[in-house]
Amino acid sequence: MRLAEVARRLELDTLYADYAACLDADALERWPEFFTEDCHYRVTSAENYEAGLPLGLIYATSKDMLRDRVSALRDANIYEPQRYRHLISGVRIERDDAGTLDVTANFLVVRTMQDGAMILFAAGRYVDRLVHREDGWKFARKIAVLDSRQIDTLLAIPI
Amino acid sequence: MRLAEVARRLELDTLYADYAACLDADALERWPEFFTEDCHYRVTSAENYEAGLPLGLIYATSKDMLRDRVSALRDANIYEPQRYRHLISGVRIERDDAGTLDVTANFLVVRTMQDGAMILFAAGRYVDRLVHREDGWKFARKIAVLDSRQIDTLLAIPI
Amino acid sequence: MRLAEVARRLELDTLYADYAACLDADALERWPEFFTEDCHYRVTSAENYEAGLPLGLIYATSKDMLRDRVSALRDANIYEPQRYRHLISGVRIERDDAGTLDVTANFLVVRTMQDGAMILFAAGRYVDRLVHREDGWKFARKIAVLDSRQIDTLLAIPI
Repeated sequence: MRLAEVARRLELDTLYADYAACLDADALERWPEFFTEDCHYRVTSAENYEAGLPLGLIYATSKDMLRDRVSALRDANIYEPQRYRHLISGVRIERDDAGTLDVTANFLVVRTMQDGAMILFAAGRYVDRLVHREDGWKFARKIAVLDSRQIDTLLAIPI
Repeated sequence: MRLAEVARRLELDTLYADYAACLDADALERWPEFFTEDCHYRVTSAENYEAGLPLGLIYATSKDMLRDRVSALRDANIYEPQRYRHLISGVRIERDDAGTLDVTANFLVVRTMQDGAMILFAAGRYVDRLVHREDGWKFARKIAVLDSRQIDTLLAIPI
Repeated sequence: MRLAEVARRLELDTLYADYAACLDADALERWPEFFTEDCHYRVTSAENYEAGLPLGLIYATSKDMLRDRVSALRDANIYEPQRYRHLISGVRIERDDAGTLDVTANFLVVRTMQDGAMILFAAGRYVDRLVHREDGWKFARKIAVLDSRQIDTLLAIPI
């Protein structure tokens, strides 16, 4: 393993750590910056994903659509006194095609309500495609494949 | 820290990520390939482990026994519409004896049923021994020490 | 990324893995050794932290106070047949000021009772400051910011 390869691995770890920190801090306005302009973002169930269905609980095909999603969440203006915590582990490079990386990782999202009640909100894996841009690695594609078939995402932050 | 040491650390991270991905994808037929031919695999409770008891909820002393276990799970032929998600963190090299590594790591396994119900299925730590073979690192010993005394493992995938 | 930077990143990963392993093994007498003599340690809620309140569910301003805390926990002498498991992920260096590092990380603590019941005990993030000493990295400051407002910490091990 050369130093360049080692460095890339750590860059990816940092990217996923930054991504989780952004969402958990409810800094949603910064969230689209993790993506390319023509990105594909989707939250779907394992069942649909494995069946090859393009359906998604959340679906976006550009960074602008991600921004719209954030605006919608903000405009809903319902202050839900809840916090999310993303645990991401097992970041794996599955394929390297001339610098475009197919990467998977496991995630667990825990939601804590203001009264202290904690629940397992979501578990699953990311099926991502990463490209390198001037300002670092960006998600050209990010699919959050949920282990469960359904999830309360109406008011939820992205995963 | 030399580059070789850095590379080894990342190889171990990759190994545990691959291991989790294999189990979570229910690719059990590939699971024995993570082990040496004469491996020791055990799932036990912290209580038994600390008491030095050799008991195990699952116990195998060769790769062939792991294959048998997989066959048994497949033959049981009970389609349980559940998914498992392994979160593994804190991979630590506790001892390096001429290339044989004693490694521990924390794990959390979340189970999601088809109706979306999620539970904490298992938490604990791996107490592993790793050796390097032609095709990479293999578990010569893997003990999954569960924080709980009991677990429903009859139909569960390995941990 | 130079090799020195890579090595430092892995040292931090190891530090957090060691920290989790120490607490999960109930090796509390070793816990203060992760800190500097004049350390600041606090467990607080996100609500209080964001409001800038210096309150803490647990509060210590020296390694000696950490030792006192451990003694108090031991003297309480109530054997609670419970185990804790720390999952720490997303270790991020937020700032490097001449070798003093501001580091954050996400944590999830799962508690398992003797009868096997498992609960999400705590989720949140560490807001830490690390300095390098002769014997490695030490926490000059460690704030465990809990997503929940309250937590049962009377008999709990540190976070």
